[in-house]
Amino acid sequence: MEEASASLREVMALLAPRAGDARVIGLTGSPGVGKSTTTSALVGAYRRRGLRVGVLAIDPSSPFSGGALLGDRIRMQDHATDDGVFIRSMATRGQLGGLSWATPQALRVLSAAGCDVILIETVGVGQAEVEIAQLADTTVVLLAPGMGDGIQAAKAGILEIADVFVVNKADRDGADTVARDLRGLVSHLASDAWKPPIVKTVASRGEGADEVLEAIDAHAAHSSLETTRRRRASHEVEAIALSLLRSRMGSVRGGELSRLASQVAAGSLDPYTAADELMASL
Amino acid sequence: MEEASASLREVMALLAPRAGDARVIGLTGSPGVGKSTTTSALVGAYRRRGLRVGVLAIDPSSPFSGGALLGDRIRMQDHATDDGVFIRSMATRGQLGGLSWATPQALRVLSAAGCDVILIETVGVGQAEVEIAQLADTTVVLLAPGMGDGIQAAKAGILEIADVFVVNKADRDGADTVARDLRGLVSHLASDAWKPPIVKTVASRGEGADEVLEAIDAHAAHSSLETTRRRRASHEVEAIALSLLRSRMGSVRGGELSRLASQVAAGSLDPYTAADELMASL
Repeated sequence: MEEASASLREVMALLAPRAGDARVIGLTGSPGVGKSTTTSALVGAYRRRGLRVGVLAIDPSSPFSGGALLGDRIRMQDHATDDGVFIRSMATRGQLGGLSWATPQALRVLSAAGCDVILIETVGVGQAEVEIAQLADTTVVLLAPGMGDGIQAAKAGILEIADVFVVNKADRDGADTVARDLRGLVSHLASDAWKPPIVKTVASRGEGADEVLEAIDAHAAHSSLETTRRRRASHEVEAIALSLLRSRMGSVRGGELSRLASQVAAGSLDPYTAADELMASL
Repeated sequence: MEEASASLREVMALLAPRAGDARVIGLTGSPGVGKSTTTSALVGAYRRRGLRVGVLAIDPSSPFSGGALLGDRIRMQDHATDDGVFIRSMATRGQLGGLSWATPQALRVLSAAGCDVILIETVGVGQAEVEIAQLADTTVVLLAPGMGDGIQAAKAGILEIADVFVVNKADRDGADTVARDLRGLVSHLASDAWKPPIVKTVASRGEGADEVLEAIDAHAAHSSLETTRRRRASHEVEAIALSLLRSRMGSVRGGELSRLASQVAAGSLDPYTAADELMASL
């Protein structure tokens, strides 16, 4: 990220009072579980409720801001001509903390544009997934039968981020097994903790979308919007501060950092002492 | 990351003179291309050359440091009892910049343990892949036929990080197409740029491993070790400095950051001004 330009700062100051108007729903899952199809089905269900919907599709594997590639991929054609739906693709590849820096600002813009609900969709891999969960009021984790290792590997981390589980492609063999495994996972949660509901869907036919919305509503009723919004603001402020610091380090890259890196590479300085010296030079 | 303990700093200071002894090879690719099998085949090929080999398997989707899950998954049984092979799994899920902070230090430890070559293996998704490329002397990008969207999606970013391409599972239909697509991509590189060689392998049978080593050697002869090592040190120092700054912000989380976040959440303060105030309080 570059040092924020004066105009960006100005826009953000103008948008600040509009923060937090929209409800933010995160959707995440392994490749192939049907995230885009599910997003499209949920958009349809929210539109039938008369709500204006924003969609942020985040692709952590693409280096291209603007996300034309991803824009082609998401199956949002049903909603492309609906002026109650705003769609934006973002790419974050290679940007350390890019998601937590840029996403809250995109949320604020969509919120100011009048969205009642904003869906953030991203692939459930590593840092992006964790960041989405930190930003969303409610996080929906999608699974599907027949993903093999994917679900096994995902299990380790999904309980910490899921507020709602969706088992998509529920018309396929193995969907009951996935749901049963999830019930087993959820049963180990502390008795006073929120128990993520498990909803089966066939998103390609729109089946189960209303039930997902009800599960999201149930979580919303249980949780404190104020808490999630303060958490989101905290992450945003921290990410901006880190980005600004990083940018300052970058601007000394030709000088102090380069000199320190040469010494570390040569083995004449250890990296912690070098980091101390770098910070002292900021 | 926590503020570095005094003992960690001490160990790093002792290890600093050992920096850069080992040659660092990054291996990355989508799930299912055969990364672990290829790593195992390359370890075997390096062992036949009489070199000591370190393996760092990095799992950005796991929140567990120590990586027992991943340790089970990697198919390194062939080398488990060979005392010329060191294997370490690392998990980085949820750690912003965790890879660039911890990996250079693990490299230094393996280097001090006498490794001539260190293979870093990670799944080719998002930030982890970019960080590996920044750390490695040579980056090997694996592909395989029949991965569908995976290869398409990967295309956008792989040219910027690949020094060597490996088309694994070359005995399967479609391998020639993948190799031809890669030749097409490579042909667009500037005429004075390094042209990544494209090597076909059947890693499960060890076929092509020696050819991959030759391609890595060719890249090594072409590139400057000094440059890649200075780049690695630069990223490491920057990552440590950012982690320390982040840790300081965390320690003010109960106080200043929390107060600022409340104002941002309420819309009475914009996030950039809040970030300025946070930095001023450090």
